[in-house]
Amino acid sequence: MTSRPILLTMGDPVGIGPEIIVRAHAAGELQDAVVVGDPAVLARARLACGLPPVDLPVWQPPTLSDASLASLPWGCVDARAGAAAAACIVAATREVLAGRARAVVTAPIHKEALAAAGVGVPGHTELLQSLASEHVGRPLPVRMMLANDELRVVLVTIHTSLRRAIEALDTPGILETITITHEALQRFGLVAPRIAVAGLNPHAGEGGLFGDEEIRLITPAIEAARSRGIDARGPYAPDTVFMRARDTAARPGEFDAVVAMTHDHGLIPVKYLGVEQGVNLTLGLPLVRTSPDHGTAFDIAGRGLADPASLVAALRMARRLAPG
Amino acid sequence: MTSRPILLTMGDPVGIGPEIIVRAHAAGELQDAVVVGDPAVLARARLACGLPPVDLPVWQPPTLSDASLASLPWGCVDARAGAAAAACIVAATREVLAGRARAVVTAPIHKEALAAAGVGVPGHTELLQSLASEHVGRPLPVRMMLANDELRVVLVTIHTSLRRAIEALDTPGILETITITHEALQRFGLVAPRIAVAGLNPHAGEGGLFGDEEIRLITPAIEAARSRGIDARGPYAPDTVFMRARDTAARPGEFDAVVAMTHDHGLIPVKYLGVEQGVNLTLGLPLVRTSPDHGTAFDIAGRGLADPASLVAALRMARRLAPG
Repeated sequence: MTSRPILLTMGDPVGIGPEIIVRAHAAGELQDAVVVGDPAVLARARLACGLPPVDLPVWQPPTLSDASLASLPWGCVDARAGAAAAACIVAATREVLAGRARAVVTAPIHKEALAAAGVGVPGHTELLQSLASEHVGRPLPVRMMLANDELRVVLVTIHTSLRRAIEALDTPGILETITITHEALQRFGLVAPRIAVAGLNPHAGEGGLFGDEEIRLITPAIEAARSRGIDARGPYAPDTVFMRARDTAARPGEFDAVVAMTHDHGLIPVKYLGVEQGVNLTLGLPLVRTSPDHGTAFDIAGRGLADPASLVAALRMARRLAPG
Repeated sequence: MTSRPILLTMGDPVGIGPEIIVRAHAAGELQDAVVVGDPAVLARARLACGLPPVDLPVWQPPTLSDASLASLPWGCVDARAGAAAAACIVAATREVLAGRARAVVTAPIHKEALAAAGVGVPGHTELLQSLASEHVGRPLPVRMMLANDELRVVLVTIHTSLRRAIEALDTPGILETITITHEALQRFGLVAPRIAVAGLNPHAGEGGLFGDEEIRLITPAIEAARSRGIDARGPYAPDTVFMRARDTAARPGEFDAVVAMTHDHGLIPVKYLGVEQGVNLTLGLPLVRTSPDHGTAFDIAGRGLADPASLVAALRMARRLAPG
């Protein structure tokens, strides 16, 4: 391999991560990627998918030493599985931060397994944020972007209850999201990105009748972003802004991305047409990180049914953003 | 007219309501419908749309006596416009409750105008609920359903801030929503409707990690509904349940309707593909009421640009549910 590889973490060993990896490999999509994981887990996934034994490029980090992984039952929350998934993410991210690999693509993990393992962060985004912040020596703000062919969404709040998400909203956090979105879209090649900011409340608060977060928190953030030269607009009613941003052959989107206040306001429209092509990107990090936008699908894990399309889209996106 | 008419309220006189009405009429879609409104307002809408003067069936209720309506500026919140819109809804609903008309279809109103007029309820649903409850002599629980060709959604909470919506959630209210949905779908002709119940929190709380409303409030409601013989399932992650319910030629929906905890969880997916075919139905009333699922569109009011497709869909749905 002449260029630095893309590192692909195996995800939760008892979820569909190993299966979508071996199927993406069988489809010729791994190319310059090296899997970070347990070879026995990947061999079991090949069996589950009815694929022949092949020469899959796997790096087993020294911190991944649990020999029992490939005998854990499929589709059950397990602390050992959570610990192994986290060990792969940590190892892969450190390689990229050290400059020895060029991007990290992560297969899905299970948040309960991560919690059972005592990892101390709820998900990928927070774990990568912690590692990158440690690396640069200061806290790095990050945001999650979900993207498919017709819509890009960036989330102000993510893995927390809706009640706490509302309590956590503040003008600096919204402004930071708008700014990170603007900078990321410019890196994607858009000179003057058009950013729509969704409201929090029905009808974006209807002038204060249904909540005042738009007036107190969101509008001041939009105004501050505009004063920095960012083309941010809103706050728009959550129920129509995503439809307006949707970019199709029949109707060009009005915006290049939508900033959403909550996890589900943003993810419902991204996933509505099907999750196959959705990609999750972590913005704000000093590295490229993408992932499929689905979970571990414990209900079908080990049955050879999982579709690798979103993982393939994530690999392609990583290649585009971090050319070899 | 031999059968009892469908009554079509004009909506906010300075929004797009009058325009979509005259355009639906020009397209031959009013048939057995009588417009409840101000003839001068409708004449102005015809002018705005470049339509010739025609014999539009209009009933002007005695309570609608503001002669200045047709000279109000388009697209501005006005207490007189709000009061007139409310007067039409009240008059039309009373006619249907009295058995003199068979359904009410409502053109869009503006909630700020309604508030400015001191109407005392935030929107159509609450106003109809109040009138129907008064009529039957007891408080009637109602719910809002949004439907298009591929998705039906029923909302537990509607026109209130997201913060208050969360505070207002309780097991009886969720159970009532499931029950009303079940009964409505049976009236639509489904013998054993499959009802999905969405969670409130990201990943439906991920087993309690991201909020406990699923465990405390939603699951008990689902269990109570099931014990009554209703095929209710969940709580499912909000970001994927709507996609799973989506019914297309390529992929049949897994559910006949989704019960959503908040206004925007439900409305984002219904509107994502375009609002043209969306219909709003009020469930739980002793009358059929439908409406387009868009608003007054003050930004384009008076310009002859408004699309009557959603109003036409609402008229057709009313005809199907309340045959003449």
